[in-house]
Amino acid sequence: MSSSRNIYLKMKTLREARDLLSDRFALRPAGRGETVAVTKAAGRILAQPVYARLSSPGFHAAAMDGVAVKAEATFGATEANPKILDTGTRAVFVNTGHIMPANTNAVIMIEDILVIDENRIQIEAPAFPWQHVRRMGEDIVATELLFARHHRITAYCIGALLTGGITEVSVLAKPCLFLLPTGPELVDHRQMPEELAPGRVIESNSHVLGQMAKELGAQYIRHDIVTDNFELISQTVSEAAQDPETDMILIMGGSSSGSEDFARQVIESLGEVHVHGVAMMPGKPVVIGEINGKPAFGIPGYPVSAIMAFEQFVTPLICAMLGRAEPEPEIIHVQPTRKIAGRLGMEQFVRVKLGKVGANIVATPLPRGAGTITSITEAHGIIRIDADKEGIREDDTVSARLLKDRRYIEDTIVAVGSHDNAIDVLADLLRAESSRYSLSSSHVGSMGGLMAVKKGLCHFAGTHLLDTHDGTYNISYIQKFLPDVPVRLVRLAEREQGLIVAPGNPKKLSGITDLARDDVVFVNRQSGSGTRVLLDFHLRGAGVDPAAITGYENEEFTHMAVAVAVLGRAADAGLGIRAAARALDLDFIPVATESYELVIPEAFAESGRIRLLTEMIGSAQFIERLHAMGGYHTQNTGRVVWKSHQ
Amino acid sequence: MSSSRNIYLKMKTLREARDLLSDRFALRPAGRGETVAVTKAAGRILAQPVYARLSSPGFHAAAMDGVAVKAEATFGATEANPKILDTGTRAVFVNTGHIMPANTNAVIMIEDILVIDENRIQIEAPAFPWQHVRRMGEDIVATELLFARHHRITAYCIGALLTGGITEVSVLAKPCLFLLPTGPELVDHRQMPEELAPGRVIESNSHVLGQMAKELGAQYIRHDIVTDNFELISQTVSEAAQDPETDMILIMGGSSSGSEDFARQVIESLGEVHVHGVAMMPGKPVVIGEINGKPAFGIPGYPVSAIMAFEQFVTPLICAMLGRAEPEPEIIHVQPTRKIAGRLGMEQFVRVKLGKVGANIVATPLPRGAGTITSITEAHGIIRIDADKEGIREDDTVSARLLKDRRYIEDTIVAVGSHDNAIDVLADLLRAESSRYSLSSSHVGSMGGLMAVKKGLCHFAGTHLLDTHDGTYNISYIQKFLPDVPVRLVRLAEREQGLIVAPGNPKKLSGITDLARDDVVFVNRQSGSGTRVLLDFHLRGAGVDPAAITGYENEEFTHMAVAVAVLGRAADAGLGIRAAARALDLDFIPVATESYELVIPEAFAESGRIRLLTEMIGSAQFIERLHAMGGYHTQNTGRVVWKSHQ
Repeated sequence: MSSSRNIYLKMKTLREARDLLSDRFALRPAGRGETVAVTKAAGRILAQPVYARLSSPGFHAAAMDGVAVKAEATFGATEANPKILDTGTRAVFVNTGHIMPANTNAVIMIEDILVIDENRIQIEAPAFPWQHVRRMGEDIVATELLFARHHRITAYCIGALLTGGITEVSVLAKPCLFLLPTGPELVDHRQMPEELAPGRVIESNSHVLGQMAKELGAQYIRHDIVTDNFELISQTVSEAAQDPETDMILIMGGSSSGSEDFARQVIESLGEVHVHGVAMMPGKPVVIGEINGKPAFGIPGYPVSAIMAFEQFVTPLICAMLGRAEPEPEIIHVQPTRKIAGRLGMEQFVRVKLGKVGANIVATPLPRGAGTITSITEAHGIIRIDADKEGIREDDTVSARLLKDRRYIEDTIVAVGSHDNAIDVLADLLRAESSRYSLSSSHVGSMGGLMAVKKGLCHFAGTHLLDTHDGTYNISYIQKFLPDVPVRLVRLAEREQGLIVAPGNPKKLSGITDLARDDVVFVNRQSGSGTRVLLDFHLRGAGVDPAAITGYENEEFTHMAVAVAVLGRAADAGLGIRAAARALDLDFIPVATESYELVIPEAFAESGRIRLLTEMIGSAQFIERLHAMGGYHTQNTGRVVWKSHQ
Repeated sequence: MSSSRNIYLKMKTLREARDLLSDRFALRPAGRGETVAVTKAAGRILAQPVYARLSSPGFHAAAMDGVAVKAEATFGATEANPKILDTGTRAVFVNTGHIMPANTNAVIMIEDILVIDENRIQIEAPAFPWQHVRRMGEDIVATELLFARHHRITAYCIGALLTGGITEVSVLAKPCLFLLPTGPELVDHRQMPEELAPGRVIESNSHVLGQMAKELGAQYIRHDIVTDNFELISQTVSEAAQDPETDMILIMGGSSSGSEDFARQVIESLGEVHVHGVAMMPGKPVVIGEINGKPAFGIPGYPVSAIMAFEQFVTPLICAMLGRAEPEPEIIHVQPTRKIAGRLGMEQFVRVKLGKVGANIVATPLPRGAGTITSITEAHGIIRIDADKEGIREDDTVSARLLKDRRYIEDTIVAVGSHDNAIDVLADLLRAESSRYSLSSSHVGSMGGLMAVKKGLCHFAGTHLLDTHDGTYNISYIQKFLPDVPVRLVRLAEREQGLIVAPGNPKKLSGITDLARDDVVFVNRQSGSGTRVLLDFHLRGAGVDPAAITGYENEEFTHMAVAVAVLGRAADAGLGIRAAARALDLDFIPVATESYELVIPEAFAESGRIRLLTEMIGSAQFIERLHAMGGYHTQNTGRVVWKSHQ
């Protein structure tokens, strides 16, 4: 191993890599076809044009309930001079769909006739020829083209095909992807353990990409996990490449350049590598090559990288083999809630949460790490930052590709501010009660929440900002920072804050003053967070100098992250809520009880979405679930405790 | 049967009927849930919130290939004063994803180190704590909410669920529809005959609606066809209504008020009918009721009515039971190619073909009969005309609900004009050659085509207009009607026109003069069509008075419709192309050979789509398929025969 080895081939731009892909591989439907029953053919693509075998109607048919007549026999009938027709011979009762009797060419609607007796009817207006008659072949003529080649069969098409006498169709075979997960750290989900051994992870990329392939109309074979062994991977891939049923090979993991990364070597040894490394993030360490004329990929192991590489390079190949255009993403204009850094020379795909606040769709960036699968499952959209851009400013309007329906976005309640597990409970209850609204929360701390309210970027903010002069919560901060925004303050709960420590409290901490001990490592919350304000207040009260606390500069953004740091022994203690300690079976030393409140702009307070939300906060269900989590006091839950502009 | 019976309950407006539906039925997810494997759960809706069981990462993990160090040990390193670290103890080689060794908290990338020897490396910059480390729980913290109740599981979600240690999830059971096709005329497609007996039709609605239900996330049971027998239908429906697995009942057919229409009676006798008849077209004769607390519908038998009734009334119920919003149709603004009549008091759903011509999306109405399944399979969109509107004028801009991707519409080549089977062949070849473009043609005759070119409503028009003064085709008409539009004329083929007659020519016709015989019924083409001009020219030449021809006033819009009229014995003869006669095994008496040409505006002639089209016209494949159809001469096929503005 040496620092001088060639890490990647010359890195390609995304555009170059995609162009190369369409140059190398005939982007046209594969020859293979198969015959399927029409009733099972929805979503498939016709391999051949389909011509009707039967006409529809196959006969002249009554289009209304009534009597069939020869139009010429009715000419001259008027209200003043009605005509009387004999039933059975000159006028025959028919129902919709009946075959027209011989020597008739028009139907008079049942509403327009008067039955005189069993044998006679009277009409007061003439019928014109072919009135209310569906003529033979009106819909489909036998021998005519029903659907051109490469037509995608819809539910509706099933009706036309069966009606045209077609029960089977020849469709393009589903392109078959061979997915090979590699990596010694991987555990198959079918062997899901109670606890994962350190260093192991559940293999999931093959199932994600397999499902993505299925949704595009392809199929996949997932090979069992192979550890990072060159010979074994090579042999497995070689066999797959020989299989005439394999259309594409994806080696998953090991696409980078570490000592256990074999994807490039394997493809090189069996075929040819065209690209190693594309200037995009996530997704950079992708390998694109071919084996036996078939596209072969090294797919990065980080889940978001794998997804991005698949969407950029595998999706277009699948679509081309199915003779269809790439799915066109829906694009909307959004306003970022904060500036987003780019990186010159790299296309960036930034996952964002979206919501409509007032007139604007606002976009809050999610964590950018390619290893963070929740950054894409929680995303409502993706903002693409071009390689020649340094980033996006806060007041730029940019376009985002939608991952959810536009209406879902418009019906999302946007919460920005301090995190509390009670917000997650609200989100769940809301989904249970409403098929329309959902709640999306971004965790930027209490002050961040107030700033979001000020800029009109959220529907409400969760805050717990202690006024260290008078011990009140939130009000003085609102008066100072939001003088011009009418808001109301709704109490969510009082909650216990305290020191989160390892089970059994091994360092025998008794309170805030112990944090200054030499043998204690602390984990802090970010400045601007209510918990940080609370900590500093208590440190001052106890006369402890923050500089004396080891780890005071280690900042986390949520209570759970603090608890995790303690659980993982990165720290001995952190300040957080009891619910977080309880969730991870950690010990808890109470420090204070504080008010956690929602700052709701008056502009939204009476909207349907916020009324529903406040109803939910007042519900017995919600209070029950707070108590189940522990550390919450609910006597004032749901109460409007203050309004800024009475 | 009497004219005075009450045909419908008081007809409801569409709005009233939908409101009644949401009042009567709790539009909330049904209680039933079921457990499914995460790997098979894409598209399903969570019945319960899901909390993570494992953290991810479950340990502090290297985020880069490199060496793991204790950051504090690197402080002070600079280019001028590099630090040397012992490998194995103070610096440990790690690959991405590896567990961080004890007493390390940062990774230095492999690119940034210099290997001195087997035991030592050199660094020239310090690492900061947690640099290039994915900390335990960074992505997912055990116990935290992964997805709220009623979240729809996507491919991406599979990754988060498996990573969070979840292999099974509880999802909402798929609502189950019981579909009962009724009608004595129906034939099951599994007994598809060579020829349908007169009066019989293939049952297809249950398969169309069943597939639509599946695509919404429901499932269905299709009962065998039951003939229109009250007791039998009633007993079958009653049993289904008792079945706890049935969520909804659809009696298909017999929903109107004919003598064999039992849907309303059956629902009335077993439960309650709330609505019979909704002021919408298609879809008017729908029955909405309930049996045993379950929604029960009488679905009209006409295929487009069945689809519209399903979309308006069944879709919202399915979506509500799945806790999701109704799919939101994409809406675009379109310009109709001709005025569209409405009907006061009725909502109208008009199926249209769409295409982008120049800057506008133009909409050409398709046949409006509810029995015409191809009017919805060929549709690109649906224009809704409100009940209080008399119709839409030609220059109104109206909105249409898209049935195809917007890009598909934009890449559609719009042909308006005379119909020729060669146009269908072109459409098929185009789909075979291009994954991008498709061809959509509307048949309004040659003059209609020229008018469409004039108004900028199509990319080209097919015409065969004979100048009866000099025997030339098309040019004089273009000069007269398109003086201001630069166009070129491309020869598609010369084709034979003649009398289409029944096999064996039973009336022993020898030519155009025989059409005046008393025992001969003729079927004509619409005025403005090239074939009509041709007929009139030859009648004049032969000295035949049109008034002497029985059936001269019977107008059809395509060659195939004329052939079908002859096949169905509605007429003894019609003028049309040889290919139409041949397709239906009819006899053909040649009358003339004419030039069928495409009028292409110069504005589009050099566009990618038209170049591709003209390439296709010149191809050997196309010419081969013309010859296979018969009646075409191709020596000038593909030639630009004339340009209007040289």
